[in-house]
Amino acid sequence: MDITNIDFKKMNDIIPTIIQDSKTNEVFMLGYMNKVSLQNTIKTGDIHFWSRSRNMLWKKGETSGNQLKVKEIYLDCDGDTLLIKVQLIGINVCHTGKRTCFTKQLSFTQK
Amino acid sequence: MDITNIDFKKMNDIIPTIIQDSKTNEVFMLGYMNKVSLQNTIKTGDIHFWSRSRNMLWKKGETSGNQLKVKEIYLDCDGDTLLIKVQLIGINVCHTGKRTCFTKQLSFTQK
Repeated sequence: MDITNIDFKKMNDIIPTIIQDSKTNEVFMLGYMNKVSLQNTIKTGDIHFWSRSRNMLWKKGETSGNQLKVKEIYLDCDGDTLLIKVQLIGINVCHTGKRTCFTKQLSFTQK
Repeated sequence: MDITNIDFKKMNDIIPTIIQDSKTNEVFMLGYMNKVSLQNTIKTGDIHFWSRSRNMLWKKGETSGNQLKVKEIYLDCDGDTLLIKVQLIGINVCHTGKRTCFTKQLSFTQK
């Protein structure tokens, strides 16, 4: 299984990529990868994303220092979503200074 | 924190939604929700998605019986991604008959 199994065409070259702690399974964030950012990620072992708002490649942690080291890469059944298990080098993943991007809990009463 | 904090407009009413096991933190799948499918999810406690390929709402497990009961709902820092912790009612989540959609591991040599 390699990069050729990913359906970049279907997704207009933008693949949603779930970033998960390899030790605790905590989900840190969702980013987006195009083919080049995934190639850079595989080549270097450091997470690289495609920024949809800035239209550019970026290496996670390049300015913040909070880098993400790749441990394992998974593709889903449809070939259009990635799940990457990582080791966080640093203290937090989110630009808000929190460990994860998913800290806002929505009101929900269990049914 | 509620549904009004979600940036549906930015995402053309299609919010990527990570589905995670509430007990083990295993990531089961990534689906997509529009406002109505999220409202149905919150109202019933059962995961409802928006199908991009079929252009219709669908309740997860409606035909397969593998339903997902909502435990907690989180929104990310940008307001454009959901993470929902669930309890799986049934045996598997993936239409391929596997427990999770992320079973294909990509070749990667740790750096």
